[in-house]
Amino acid sequence: MHAENRYCFDHQPLLIVISGPAGVGKDSLIRRMKERGTDFHFVVTATDRPPRPGEVHGVDYIFVNTEEFLRMEQEGELLEHAVVYGQHKGIPKQQVRDALASGRDVVMRIDVQGADAIRRLVPEAVTIFLTAASEVEQEARLIARGGDSHVQLEKRIRTAREEMEELRKFDYVVVNGTCQLDLAVDKVLSIIEAEHCRVRARRITL
Amino acid sequence: MHAENRYCFDHQPLLIVISGPAGVGKDSLIRRMKERGTDFHFVVTATDRPPRPGEVHGVDYIFVNTEEFLRMEQEGELLEHAVVYGQHKGIPKQQVRDALASGRDVVMRIDVQGADAIRRLVPEAVTIFLTAASEVEQEARLIARGGDSHVQLEKRIRTAREEMEELRKFDYVVVNGTCQLDLAVDKVLSIIEAEHCRVRARRITL
Repeated sequence: MHAENRYCFDHQPLLIVISGPAGVGKDSLIRRMKERGTDFHFVVTATDRPPRPGEVHGVDYIFVNTEEFLRMEQEGELLEHAVVYGQHKGIPKQQVRDALASGRDVVMRIDVQGADAIRRLVPEAVTIFLTAASEVEQEARLIARGGDSHVQLEKRIRTAREEMEELRKFDYVVVNGTCQLDLAVDKVLSIIEAEHCRVRARRITL
Repeated sequence: MHAENRYCFDHQPLLIVISGPAGVGKDSLIRRMKERGTDFHFVVTATDRPPRPGEVHGVDYIFVNTEEFLRMEQEGELLEHAVVYGQHKGIPKQQVRDALASGRDVVMRIDVQGADAIRRLVPEAVTIFLTAASEVEQEARLIARGGDSHVQLEKRIRTAREEMEELRKFDYVVVNGTCQLDLAVDKVLSIIEAEHCRVRARRITL
């Protein structure tokens, strides 16, 4: 024991899942968290889609070819994976493991279905549901994103409504009101700080 | 439903219990919270001890005579009560009820034994255990408070050690390091903000 009899409180790194309907601002929230310089490991997703102009390998995505992606999937190297519009996306397990081993909190941005999978795999994960303040705001955001046909947009709106039903499975809900991104970031950071103060620490094994 | 289909998230007021061993800085923490101007209702304890110079009725304590205190106790008007050094102390239930009804969070400073009683009565309460960073710091604080004989001090140190065992019953633990009161206040405020984001809201009935 330490000469000073220092009380030993468990400082386990956390796995924080940021989820919510499409268009709610998950990417913006994470970008703002990075800008604020918080010392988290932000998970980089692996994908077999080609990089878009300006995208950096290892920063925006881990770009692999389809063969390599399927190998990772088959060999259980992915914590979670999905096919989105015919393109593979997945979270490399080792990356999360390494970050947690270094003692850093891991922040993961994932869609609502993916969050369900993570919750089953890692019950200790802290799950945060990001939402707009109202249905009207949610739909306005989907429209503002552009690029969707009328039919696609209708489908996205329907999906977002269904996803709201998943809210009750999450630990926390944070409202990302229009022009209130910093407020939402403050709340996420408070949740993380509070979770570090929880008496029953969540030790994660992957 | 609101014209905008505003999502309805539960904004229940919280009952926040600040506890921890004697000398750990519970009063200082609450004083600093008040200075920061946070909009909480801070519970005022009823007591039958006479006011000390400078103490204000209704602010520092609710001063009643012993007869009145015993009547409050017998008629179930106290949420919790204890005899400390032959003097009665208790928390008026109606005060907490009124504050919660007004939608404000209620902050209650209480010793570790009292926290146990509150937890049984109000399982929805958010309980925070305030602690020094080490046993040496904890003992130094008790010594610095002064006014105790050697025997009394030994007893307080023993009690504080026993109270540390109660930590695991609390929701959160916050370290109040020497000269780090503001850090501890930040953590308590984060816990309160996070608890307001919890999906399973805690509706309190007294």
